[in-house]
Amino acid sequence: MARQERAVRTRRAVLEAAAAVFAEHGYTAATVADILRTAGVTKGALYFHFDSKESLARGVLEVQTDQVLPPRDIKLQEVVDLAMTVAHRLRDDPLLRAGARLSADPAGRRQYGSAWPLWVEVLSGVLGEAHRRGETLAHVIPAEVAELLVSSFNGVQLYSQLENGLSDVEHRVSVLLKHLLPSIASPAVLMRLDVAEDRGARVLAEVTQSEAQGQVPVSA
Amino acid sequence: MARQERAVRTRRAVLEAAAAVFAEHGYTAATVADILRTAGVTKGALYFHFDSKESLARGVLEVQTDQVLPPRDIKLQEVVDLAMTVAHRLRDDPLLRAGARLSADPAGRRQYGSAWPLWVEVLSGVLGEAHRRGETLAHVIPAEVAELLVSSFNGVQLYSQLENGLSDVEHRVSVLLKHLLPSIASPAVLMRLDVAEDRGARVLAEVTQSEAQGQVPVSA
Repeated sequence: MARQERAVRTRRAVLEAAAAVFAEHGYTAATVADILRTAGVTKGALYFHFDSKESLARGVLEVQTDQVLPPRDIKLQEVVDLAMTVAHRLRDDPLLRAGARLSADPAGRRQYGSAWPLWVEVLSGVLGEAHRRGETLAHVIPAEVAELLVSSFNGVQLYSQLENGLSDVEHRVSVLLKHLLPSIASPAVLMRLDVAEDRGARVLAEVTQSEAQGQVPVSA
Repeated sequence: MARQERAVRTRRAVLEAAAAVFAEHGYTAATVADILRTAGVTKGALYFHFDSKESLARGVLEVQTDQVLPPRDIKLQEVVDLAMTVAHRLRDDPLLRAGARLSADPAGRRQYGSAWPLWVEVLSGVLGEAHRRGETLAHVIPAEVAELLVSSFNGVQLYSQLENGLSDVEHRVSVLLKHLLPSIASPAVLMRLDVAEDRGARVLAEVTQSEAQGQVPVSA
């Protein structure tokens, strides 16, 4: 394994360990010692990549929006795909769970920031394109809808997490989208959107398959 | 002042002090000593009403849904009024801010519970009545919409709180309702709903006025 590849893997292992610890204990209660133990790397290796608990939290937040999804003819389907794949991944991906918990921590986020502006930026881009293509209703303000989606999604996933450990998060996000989209999408677009509960799982299977075939999906 | 009235006032002062401390510091970091100092009552008076930090948190959660609002001809307007008055009160009422923070605390709520089930129960009742009166669209499931409203409202208020200290919470809740209600209310009801940003302030002014005139508003 080349030296650089090894460094990338170590950095990723440390980030995933940090995410697991932040997701479980929250930022304040988490310690670098916990993260070291979970990552199974040396102190030197960890500090080579991250010089503090704060920079570990920043590192976790930076990778929140890294998942690349297939482009769609309807841009609003990309918005749905993003929401449904994040909902699906939340259950098994400590990075996303940590991102949600860190972003909602009033004390901690004063130090390391929040993932919400990243999500708003990504969604504003796709919603803006949908708007230019005429997919949305006339009154829609892309940036406003982006913030509405990020904030309401976060409320719904938090509710699911605290009430039943995320067991119904995809159902709840699907219900949220089914109630929001009629005031966002034009009717002809609305009827073509796939907002089913298992949409996230299907899109991620598609991504895995095209990666296995050596195709690189184009970023949304 | 009669003995019982004094006890009621002391209990309220303690609850408000507990709420202020929980809202500011969170459950874990809050101490009974902080609450005592903020309330300005004796230790004996506090422990007469609440025997632990946990029971103080429970006390704060129990009073979340106490505000009585005027009944309306359209039951969905009562749903809007509830959301918009809570949004308005969040800024100045530590009890509601503490309720939101305590309910979203993964560690704490295992001890003292959450206000969400109370809100879901209140909203399910009003939405069920709206449904029986034919105010809602055919596909609407009142209990599902109640949970959607509680969870998405919570996400929106948290976003507003963390991004700008609740300065735009009424605007954001109004945007949420404007995007959700077209998939909940029948068109004829929808066009009659007042979902303006200042709705909460106006409804609360109405309540204050009728209380000053000695009228007791009927609970929704």
